[in-house]
Amino acid sequence: MSDSSDSNLRRRKGRAPGACETEDDFFHYLDTFFDREHPSLELGRGDDCAVLNLPGKSCFTTDLFLEDVHFRTRYFTPGEIGHKGLAVNLSDLAGMGVKPTGFLLNLIVPGDDRLDAAFWDEFFAAMAKLANDAGAVLAGGDLSAGPNLGMAITAWGVPEQGSAILTRGPVSPGDIIFTVGEYGLARTGLMCMEAEGRDAEADFPAAVAAHCTPQPKLAAGLVLGRIAGESGGVTGLMDLSDGIARDLPRLLGFEHGAALDIPSDSLHEEIRRHAQETGEDPVEFAVVGGEDYALLGAASPSTITRLEQEVEGLRPIGEVVPGKGLTVNGKHFTRTGFDHFGR
Amino acid sequence: MSDSSDSNLRRRKGRAPGACETEDDFFHYLDTFFDREHPSLELGRGDDCAVLNLPGKSCFTTDLFLEDVHFRTRYFTPGEIGHKGLAVNLSDLAGMGVKPTGFLLNLIVPGDDRLDAAFWDEFFAAMAKLANDAGAVLAGGDLSAGPNLGMAITAWGVPEQGSAILTRGPVSPGDIIFTVGEYGLARTGLMCMEAEGRDAEADFPAAVAAHCTPQPKLAAGLVLGRIAGESGGVTGLMDLSDGIARDLPRLLGFEHGAALDIPSDSLHEEIRRHAQETGEDPVEFAVVGGEDYALLGAASPSTITRLEQEVEGLRPIGEVVPGKGLTVNGKHFTRTGFDHFGR
Repeated sequence: MSDSSDSNLRRRKGRAPGACETEDDFFHYLDTFFDREHPSLELGRGDDCAVLNLPGKSCFTTDLFLEDVHFRTRYFTPGEIGHKGLAVNLSDLAGMGVKPTGFLLNLIVPGDDRLDAAFWDEFFAAMAKLANDAGAVLAGGDLSAGPNLGMAITAWGVPEQGSAILTRGPVSPGDIIFTVGEYGLARTGLMCMEAEGRDAEADFPAAVAAHCTPQPKLAAGLVLGRIAGESGGVTGLMDLSDGIARDLPRLLGFEHGAALDIPSDSLHEEIRRHAQETGEDPVEFAVVGGEDYALLGAASPSTITRLEQEVEGLRPIGEVVPGKGLTVNGKHFTRTGFDHFGR
Repeated sequence: MSDSSDSNLRRRKGRAPGACETEDDFFHYLDTFFDREHPSLELGRGDDCAVLNLPGKSCFTTDLFLEDVHFRTRYFTPGEIGHKGLAVNLSDLAGMGVKPTGFLLNLIVPGDDRLDAAFWDEFFAAMAKLANDAGAVLAGGDLSAGPNLGMAITAWGVPEQGSAILTRGPVSPGDIIFTVGEYGLARTGLMCMEAEGRDAEADFPAAVAAHCTPQPKLAAGLVLGRIAGESGGVTGLMDLSDGIARDLPRLLGFEHGAALDIPSDSLHEEIRRHAQETGEDPVEFAVVGGEDYALLGAASPSTITRLEQEVEGLRPIGEVVPGKGLTVNGKHFTRTGFDHFGR
């Protein structure tokens, strides 16, 4: 944080918010939209570093969110960009079963004039709403010019009292694999908008929303962390960001595979309709998925019933089997997963 | 961190390191050059989050380091880019008087093929050397394509036992303002290389080194933190990243100004020679400065002698005065500070 600091001084100057071009503009927006205080924050924005007080274990994640790699200004609204840039980080915290407490924002602003005050108002308001709803304080950041709009956010969180931090394993054969939230729906939205832009929303509103405003599964993560802390049985959890085909092997580790049972009618209607229009297999499309920002986990057979009762949206989709490899509805699945814009 | 994880799996595949294009490449390089373990790290690279154990207070900073904003591939070596990207963050930790313990690396890689395996070997080796020397573990990160090379690093550190965390004030009139390290030298290097490229090194070797391989003043920061913890008297400290003209008001706050006394012959010989060649005033040039990655601080008059004795490279440069404004050698100083590449 080679930042500036004196927000009151800048306010005294009466500079109207406009394009986000200087560090003064940047910190003006932060001070307008984001709280400065949090119980875990000893010293917030305006010094070389933020000073945190995080007794015990804490979880940290960082993600890039770049124009024309992770989003398009062509069909994302400013608010959706601000929301999703933070949401992808909070989703990693959900994948550990912990509660967000803070984040740092690096913002890259294109040098041209296409992003005006109205853009930044919407952008920061949406990011701040998500942050405040999640309980995460903006502790600092950095601003730079760059060729395209971009963000690099670092977010952190802590387990609730008595809760476990949930890692990607180890899982065992016989464990039940589950998801929380839709998979394949965000990719449906991406494909529709890459083809039709925002007009896709008329026919695929849920898919567009899944792609543009993913809702990190923080509440579900916390319930899973609490149950695991109380009685164990949750053998792995991660956030489903690159699609089941790519992320599930990361949950399973070297030694295990999975047999998934995914009836086509368990998928969202918009996925099935889109697959029908394009001639794709809807289940295969959904398993490739990508950017679902759902949760993917595993639990012992004796635990899964409790999870189904207590975690909203949790669905068993198969089980861990000995030996590597993935079958879906009895057939070997060999397609690799999602990579943003084909990278 | 929507990352991949199975480094051993990738090693088994025997994939040779090459361009840094996929997350597998990225994590291969990280595993090749960076330790995975640290006493403060409960869970390192390869999950949704890193899990840290940081009892007490900890300091966090984040900075962007982008091609053609903060550096040029035209005249930086790959190792210098890797070094400086991390160094600018560690300098923020030096500015708080704390010891680095870890960092997260977001890396943006241009889609063209100009950065090859030799580039990445040098880049990561230099970053890892700085990290290891400083005691900071690489806890995770993210990779993305982008139009230009870039980094967003988040680094953290903790105060040593009994030491204080040093913030930007509050300072009082009569406090002695000091620097640790050269100021104006890195800007000399920048100006020379923008004009002449790497050829500038023949005549301005120290200036080129100051710009391309800044050495964060971590040892000095730790001594200052220890003295402040033992007996107080250090009334403000910050890292000098935007030049004295821009950073000193941030140290002074709303109410105070400063009277600086900077003899021309206290400046590095290369600054004076460059100023002579360009017809600029060397003191004015050095006070504007920028990217010094020195330290700027203030101490009570009764403390400054001890600091001069115990902190290598510490120099008093003036004192805090009542009322805003800056004088240098008795004259009002009105030029604003450094902004990268004129932004």
